[in-house]
Amino acid sequence: MTDIRDYMHEVGRRARAAAREMARATTAAKNQALESMAKALEDDAGHLLAANERDLDAGRRDGLGEALLDRLALNEDRIAAMAEGLRQIAKLPDPVGEVSQLAYRPSGIQVGRMRVPLGVIGIIYESRPNVTADAAGLCLKSGNAAILRGGSEAIHSNQAIAACVRRALSGAGLPADAVQVVEITDRAAVGELLRMPEYVDIIVPRGGQGLIERISRESRVPVIKHLHGVCHVYIDDRADCDKAIQVAYNAKTQRYGTCNTMETLLIARDIAARVLPPLARMYREAGVELRGCPAARAIEPAMKEAVEEDWTTEYLAPVLSIRVVAGLEEAMEHIRRYGSAHTDAIVTEDVGRARRFLHEVDSSSVMVNASTRFADGFEYGLGAEIGISTDKLHARGPVGLEGLTSQKFIVIGDGHIRQ
Amino acid sequence: MTDIRDYMHEVGRRARAAAREMARATTAAKNQALESMAKALEDDAGHLLAANERDLDAGRRDGLGEALLDRLALNEDRIAAMAEGLRQIAKLPDPVGEVSQLAYRPSGIQVGRMRVPLGVIGIIYESRPNVTADAAGLCLKSGNAAILRGGSEAIHSNQAIAACVRRALSGAGLPADAVQVVEITDRAAVGELLRMPEYVDIIVPRGGQGLIERISRESRVPVIKHLHGVCHVYIDDRADCDKAIQVAYNAKTQRYGTCNTMETLLIARDIAARVLPPLARMYREAGVELRGCPAARAIEPAMKEAVEEDWTTEYLAPVLSIRVVAGLEEAMEHIRRYGSAHTDAIVTEDVGRARRFLHEVDSSSVMVNASTRFADGFEYGLGAEIGISTDKLHARGPVGLEGLTSQKFIVIGDGHIRQ
Repeated sequence: MTDIRDYMHEVGRRARAAAREMARATTAAKNQALESMAKALEDDAGHLLAANERDLDAGRRDGLGEALLDRLALNEDRIAAMAEGLRQIAKLPDPVGEVSQLAYRPSGIQVGRMRVPLGVIGIIYESRPNVTADAAGLCLKSGNAAILRGGSEAIHSNQAIAACVRRALSGAGLPADAVQVVEITDRAAVGELLRMPEYVDIIVPRGGQGLIERISRESRVPVIKHLHGVCHVYIDDRADCDKAIQVAYNAKTQRYGTCNTMETLLIARDIAARVLPPLARMYREAGVELRGCPAARAIEPAMKEAVEEDWTTEYLAPVLSIRVVAGLEEAMEHIRRYGSAHTDAIVTEDVGRARRFLHEVDSSSVMVNASTRFADGFEYGLGAEIGISTDKLHARGPVGLEGLTSQKFIVIGDGHIRQ
Repeated sequence: MTDIRDYMHEVGRRARAAAREMARATTAAKNQALESMAKALEDDAGHLLAANERDLDAGRRDGLGEALLDRLALNEDRIAAMAEGLRQIAKLPDPVGEVSQLAYRPSGIQVGRMRVPLGVIGIIYESRPNVTADAAGLCLKSGNAAILRGGSEAIHSNQAIAACVRRALSGAGLPADAVQVVEITDRAAVGELLRMPEYVDIIVPRGGQGLIERISRESRVPVIKHLHGVCHVYIDDRADCDKAIQVAYNAKTQRYGTCNTMETLLIARDIAARVLPPLARMYREAGVELRGCPAARAIEPAMKEAVEEDWTTEYLAPVLSIRVVAGLEEAMEHIRRYGSAHTDAIVTEDVGRARRFLHEVDSSSVMVNASTRFADGFEYGLGAEIGISTDKLHARGPVGLEGLTSQKFIVIGDGHIRQ
């Protein structure tokens, strides 16, 4: 245990020193490093695949399920996608040093805000090795140092990727320690990472709800939490039926396993008889199991009965719960009570109701006449995202480069003194 | 203990319910409540003074020192200042609902950000009763609910102020529970407040360093920390001597007991012989005790010798440590090593050096040719401040209305679906 603590503190010290250099790295050097990382991953593809094969072999021996093995696997396409992701990050504007709201005050000083890196970011994730490249790229571009702690099942893949990343950093004149992969697979290493606020400024966990809850509970460092996504679409009685059907169908069926997929459909009583039958038919054709409240089942008796637990469940599967509500108030009350503050949408042509929904629904993304599936860093124009925050402090919603920075105040005078 | 827990959870539940109402309160209602609070404090001055007298009597009986009794005391002027503060907050723009960066994306959806309240804010403070009115006003205007836990020595004053505040809230049609003063003076109540993340979104401690460190350590709710201010002015060798002397004199002597007062003066070697003698004379005339490094004492032998501890000390008193440095690099290194990331200034006419100092010094306020004393919510145009954050996450520097809010994403489409 002392060894693990010493090892992690050494990782922390190196990260802190690298973060100071990264904070003043030029945009050109950072972009050069990102381009070189992309090239290194492509050039080293053979080596990466061999390392990945070792992880897959071990995984098969340990009896990992097919889904997990698939998440763990690298191939030429996935390596190309990692490289492309890094090139995309290189093309994004550099957030560091951006000055905003610089204005004169009555005293004669100019006061503004300058965007600055957070410092050292600890990322704890599970099997997907592509997170190693994505997270390294985002932390690098935002001027931070990263400590990456992937799953033990992906350790060889992650180390091979990190070797490419570190070589590219050095080649661009940046500190290799700006990206470190924790090489100790013992869980105690995570415990140490969460207890070094002197070296780590923020923790970003990526993985299942269990992992995130445990980390949030144990961490002495602030955590950007992404809990679950119980997302709603509410079809108002003043909705355009065609738009409502399109949006509600897309929000459920465009992809089942993502956190921004709709899990509960709320329909205003006065429009339910018109939109529910055609929607139910479309869902059934797509193989979606429907579970409804009594009023929904009165219209579509073939539906299963929804139980209390359905309203709080993130299915991540072709299952949808449906509830008929009296109107906007009851819909917002349902979302408040059962939702997870991730993404919720209203479909309505009524400006007043859209305005109220936008203002009053307290979720990280609130939408009008659009599919919840749009809640995503790329769709929002943030570039890649390191996670989606369902927290209230600092960052809400997709966290991209900007979420990995904060703002300090700058003051410019000409010998000004306070009276 | 169970009683205290039950009491605090009941306070939390009420605050959470009130926060939901406050989040959708109109600007007009919030401003009306603020104006009524101001008037209620003035109208109730007699009652407030009587309640304050009870606290002062108890304080004298308990042997509180003169400084503490002074901080605790209310008088007509201080009541008028509280009322004026609330009227100022009423005049500030309402941050809630402000939409920024709303723009079309290639998919056709509009994506923007809307400013929203944090929810429930717990404020833990020491003897000054005016914090009760200030904090209530800031939380109210930013659409939050507040749980206020003042010092036990000010309990009667705080309750009297809170009664005015709650009457004004009800009069404006807002929930009185949007501002609650914790009536249990037992310290266990603070412990409970820090352990109710389900009811409290953020904790703002206001008080000495000991209080803040203890709260940060114990809290399971995020804390906006304001630790200490070891602020620096660096006089570069390319400084204008007159501006340097003005700024350095003002930063130390304009007020001694504030966190943005300079505690260490750094002077470039090549200009030290020109600026130090006149500055030392001025400081001495103002009664400031000087403690210098050997190079500074070589120029001003009358100075005491500075010891290592001086460089990390927040004197909050007419004492100043002075160090001669080789130049910009060494100055920034000193600030990094000994500073508290609060406020640091450079005096220089050199644009390149000013640019580097602004970019590389990692403090919540970084200044060029201006006195550190400007680091203040009023001077920055934020209106009142609830504290100054030396943290990196969420808010850095003076925390005003905006720091008590965050931003959610809003998406507006016209039936848009994801491809």
